[in-house]
Amino acid sequence: MSVSYRTFLFLYYGGSERFLDWICRISDSVDEFLAQAVDAAKNAGEIIRSGFHQTKRVEHKGEVDLVTETDKRCEEVIFNFLKQHYPNHKFIGEETTAACGASELTDEPTWIVDPVDGTTNFVHGYPFVCVSIGLTIGRIPTVGVVYNPIMDELFTAVRGKGAFLNGKPIKVSSQSELVKSLLATEVGTKRDKSTLDACTNRINSLLFKVRSLRMSGSCALNLCGIACGRLDLFYELGFGGPWDIAAGAVIVTEAGGVLFDPSGKEFDITSQRIAASNPLLKEAFIEALLQSE
Amino acid sequence: MSVSYRTFLFLYYGGSERFLDWICRISDSVDEFLAQAVDAAKNAGEIIRSGFHQTKRVEHKGEVDLVTETDKRCEEVIFNFLKQHYPNHKFIGEETTAACGASELTDEPTWIVDPVDGTTNFVHGYPFVCVSIGLTIGRIPTVGVVYNPIMDELFTAVRGKGAFLNGKPIKVSSQSELVKSLLATEVGTKRDKSTLDACTNRINSLLFKVRSLRMSGSCALNLCGIACGRLDLFYELGFGGPWDIAAGAVIVTEAGGVLFDPSGKEFDITSQRIAASNPLLKEAFIEALLQSE
Repeated sequence: MSVSYRTFLFLYYGGSERFLDWICRISDSVDEFLAQAVDAAKNAGEIIRSGFHQTKRVEHKGEVDLVTETDKRCEEVIFNFLKQHYPNHKFIGEETTAACGASELTDEPTWIVDPVDGTTNFVHGYPFVCVSIGLTIGRIPTVGVVYNPIMDELFTAVRGKGAFLNGKPIKVSSQSELVKSLLATEVGTKRDKSTLDACTNRINSLLFKVRSLRMSGSCALNLCGIACGRLDLFYELGFGGPWDIAAGAVIVTEAGGVLFDPSGKEFDITSQRIAASNPLLKEAFIEALLQSE
Repeated sequence: MSVSYRTFLFLYYGGSERFLDWICRISDSVDEFLAQAVDAAKNAGEIIRSGFHQTKRVEHKGEVDLVTETDKRCEEVIFNFLKQHYPNHKFIGEETTAACGASELTDEPTWIVDPVDGTTNFVHGYPFVCVSIGLTIGRIPTVGVVYNPIMDELFTAVRGKGAFLNGKPIKVSSQSELVKSLLATEVGTKRDKSTLDACTNRINSLLFKVRSLRMSGSCALNLCGIACGRLDLFYELGFGGPWDIAAGAVIVTEAGGVLFDPSGKEFDITSQRIAASNPLLKEAFIEALLQSE
């Protein structure tokens, strides 16, 4: 048993957040986790790329919430690959959850995977599609890989070690004024009147305060957009689950960004609510979000 | 003087729409116009690409409407290039219009150019940025080139000769149901209460009927999205001017799509109002748009 694996096991059985920081900084295991996650994402990306321009067999999870064979196949490929290397880790995947019900997030090392984030885009051939693979340790997002195989953009981060796009360091924007900020959000998959009214009322209120609005159709890529400064503000309420944000959360944080609940409370990976920005915009963004309710 | 150029001059001084179709099909001149437009777009694209990751000097045309030195330099490069080849043609450009006032669109061959469509995206480093070069003859969009230098996607079309993405034929989606359709629109640059309320009310109403919504920040690329079937429905009201749509209009039409006013009336290139879809969705889309007012 290597020293780094022993260190990891030590961590596995409990440790403070500061201890996790320290471990991540010194541990080879965490770098190995990243390398394996990148390999898994590239394998799945190959499947997505090869199916991107073909007609897809689509099933409906809800009226406008879709799943394809590619989603299921990619999740299988990623899980099989990672389980081979880490048989004792836990796994949470969008499609497994849809089929078998939710698994509780514990303190144990847990791979949280969205095999195809942006399934609607994948079905329509719209290029914002990605694989999202996050690893939490002690429930803290620790390793993140988001790979868009169509635009060949690979976002990676390990807690304490910075965030990267195709190997180059990235950081959040330095914008400090809402009126000069580019906002991203999504309209989600719920189509009941109260959800939709709240959604467009929120957008209406925010549009008086920001520069413009983008909707890409991928929560993970919106987070990466924040991380590399293409976007200044992002929020989403009622997205699918932790698989949409587990990887992006590490990438945003390591790029110098901040994550929080749109109400201003602390970010909770299991809450299906997220907001992200650079630290300079956080307060004004929370105020604008509160006024938009 | 070549036969095709004589044909072109014949056309230049008037002709019916059917006559224009015929001319486009047989004329070498129109192909040459396309080739020159592609060269001009690639030249400007090089400038956009080289400036994309740098900090930009931004001026404001309105509170949230931007222009950069790259916009101006690209328009100059495109106009100089095309004027060298076609000194007798007319030219309408977004930045020239902003600086010198509007030129009336006449029947004469007129190059209508948006040097950087998606300037806000360009400023923020969001990859939906393009050069849009259209040529109208008898006010009819006849040649269209839309080039996204960041994603290296070149959309081209000549009236009567089909539409292409990087040289491969493209066509609109075959979707016939609104509920399975991906809609694109934009929030524009006006921030007065009545415009914004109308904008978000329209979005609210449409969201009950379509699959999802995308906002890319580029009108020309939204049209190209319709042309290659990535998007099923697009509308925008109150965009900048004919430079946003002159090229995209040919590309959509040649890909089998239809253009119309969001009210269902005939499409008018000078009206700053546009809707586009495949022919199967047109009626239902117009009905949904009318109900959204």
